[in-house]
Amino acid sequence: MKVVVVVGGVGGARFLLGVKAALGLPPTGAPDAGSEHEVTALVNTGDDVWMHGLRVCPDLDTCMYTLGGGIDTERGWGQTDETWSVMTELQAYNADPTWFSLGDKDVATHLIRSRMIRAGYPLSAVTEALCNRWQPGVRLLPMSDDRVETHVVVDDPEDETKRKAIHFQEWWVRHRAELQAHSIVPVGAEEAAPAPGTLEAIAEADAVLFAPSNPVVSIGSVLSVPGIREALRKTEAGVVGVSPIIGGKVLRGMGDACLSAIGVETSAEAVGAHYGSRQTSDEGLLDGWLVHSGERVDVPGVAVRAVPIMMSDVDATAQMARDALELAGVQVG
Amino acid sequence: MKVVVVVGGVGGARFLLGVKAALGLPPTGAPDAGSEHEVTALVNTGDDVWMHGLRVCPDLDTCMYTLGGGIDTERGWGQTDETWSVMTELQAYNADPTWFSLGDKDVATHLIRSRMIRAGYPLSAVTEALCNRWQPGVRLLPMSDDRVETHVVVDDPEDETKRKAIHFQEWWVRHRAELQAHSIVPVGAEEAAPAPGTLEAIAEADAVLFAPSNPVVSIGSVLSVPGIREALRKTEAGVVGVSPIIGGKVLRGMGDACLSAIGVETSAEAVGAHYGSRQTSDEGLLDGWLVHSGERVDVPGVAVRAVPIMMSDVDATAQMARDALELAGVQVG
Repeated sequence: MKVVVVVGGVGGARFLLGVKAALGLPPTGAPDAGSEHEVTALVNTGDDVWMHGLRVCPDLDTCMYTLGGGIDTERGWGQTDETWSVMTELQAYNADPTWFSLGDKDVATHLIRSRMIRAGYPLSAVTEALCNRWQPGVRLLPMSDDRVETHVVVDDPEDETKRKAIHFQEWWVRHRAELQAHSIVPVGAEEAAPAPGTLEAIAEADAVLFAPSNPVVSIGSVLSVPGIREALRKTEAGVVGVSPIIGGKVLRGMGDACLSAIGVETSAEAVGAHYGSRQTSDEGLLDGWLVHSGERVDVPGVAVRAVPIMMSDVDATAQMARDALELAGVQVG
Repeated sequence: MKVVVVVGGVGGARFLLGVKAALGLPPTGAPDAGSEHEVTALVNTGDDVWMHGLRVCPDLDTCMYTLGGGIDTERGWGQTDETWSVMTELQAYNADPTWFSLGDKDVATHLIRSRMIRAGYPLSAVTEALCNRWQPGVRLLPMSDDRVETHVVVDDPEDETKRKAIHFQEWWVRHRAELQAHSIVPVGAEEAAPAPGTLEAIAEADAVLFAPSNPVVSIGSVLSVPGIREALRKTEAGVVGVSPIIGGKVLRGMGDACLSAIGVETSAEAVGAHYGSRQTSDEGLLDGWLVHSGERVDVPGVAVRAVPIMMSDVDATAQMARDALELAGVQVG
């Protein structure tokens, strides 16, 4: 079975663990040679950023480390047993920006990536090279090899009559999403192309799932790349989203600030309607929408199912992935 | 008093500590505002190398860390309390080269330098910026802002009928100078210019000293930059070298392998003659040559003086710097 999963960082990576478990794939490492299952993750790269001359891809790395067994599970990002000498030293130099954390092990990943990018390798090839070590057991595809950067339009703190666009990381990490976002823009998306293999993976999929990732800056960024939305509308696979919202609250991060920036209410129903129906709308993407047990949600033209969607452990996440796959019309386990 | 010192790495840095002490400058930190003494170090950059996309300047950093109080005195290079996460991780990725050690703190220095170099700043400006933090109390000038790279011609291990040129670091660190060097070439030197301020510093100096650094790949590299040799011959200052050889043995490193590559015997006399006399030779550079107590050395046209030149501690090194300055015709302390 071929499954495509659209993902962001922490939530997406955990969801992928569940998808692997649902398909009987080992939690880390490559699938057995004879495995009939193939998972492709389309990973958000809108958060990517140059920091101190290093190309940082937070979501790709979170997926890679999580699926490769190297993630710091408590922090949710970066590696286990991480150290912070490089960052402490950059701060001693007063090297801007000082608000972005870079672990030492993480720096090694970024060094290899940056060197390959500068040598002309596309991000998809770089990611494949890094995954040679991590063996995530899932094909990790950046949404695009082109630079698409999520910028957030905020009030200019130096001139209150003006607004300015800042990089998503500056808004998210430095300002902890506390500056009101007037809009969120995937800069460069119009000229971007999907990474090689993306459209084919969607076309050949038996099921396409949207992880319970941020609908705006994770899933929304992937969808901003021209061609991906069209491929999702055309595929014969069922397309099912998993709500990142339970009881009107975003489960991880500060995603509600992103939703309000694009004028969408923080509710499972509103986000489902935002993705829209493949059947009854010209732009919609979903056949099914998975929400939390007991929630009463109606999205016109979309089959809504309520099941437990707390990713409290891999077993629970695997069951929820099974439910999503079933809603997409395929049967596992 | 204005003193110019031509230096390499470990030995040069220690010698600079002695020069500072001889002039009554504090061991670390900037000189007092009222100090009448000014030390300029012309630092070898022939060992510089790109490693994992980072611009590494071993001699500049050794001088900067040593004079800034941050050097690991036991290892002689790199910083105190260094950690090695980045390198361990690069090795886990099998990222070539695996034979070059990069400490985590050191990586921060290289990140800042690489970013500035890529942004178009010349190495001299980058060095000044890094020294803002370290306050070495000495002006550290790279010998050139241009790329001059010491290459070593060795037998090609893959085809014994051929020879090939490898970067000095590969020869020195990876092969521990055990491959026979047929010649040593400062690649790019012909097109290089001295860094801004170099020629002026030599012209205005009251004394010029050659540290007891490697005569070939440290002092020799500095001298390979067009204009520096001519400036040294023209300056009104006395020019005095300190022998890096005691009793026919190179004190630090594997410098004898470098000397034999250029056909110079490993002796204080041969190295003194290699530098040559400013007075009696058309190419020579020395007015004085400081050798170790008890050594009987004769270099035609050069005033040779024998004093203790073991840099066993800062006091001993300061006395030896005083002796060198005195031989150059200036009086201190």
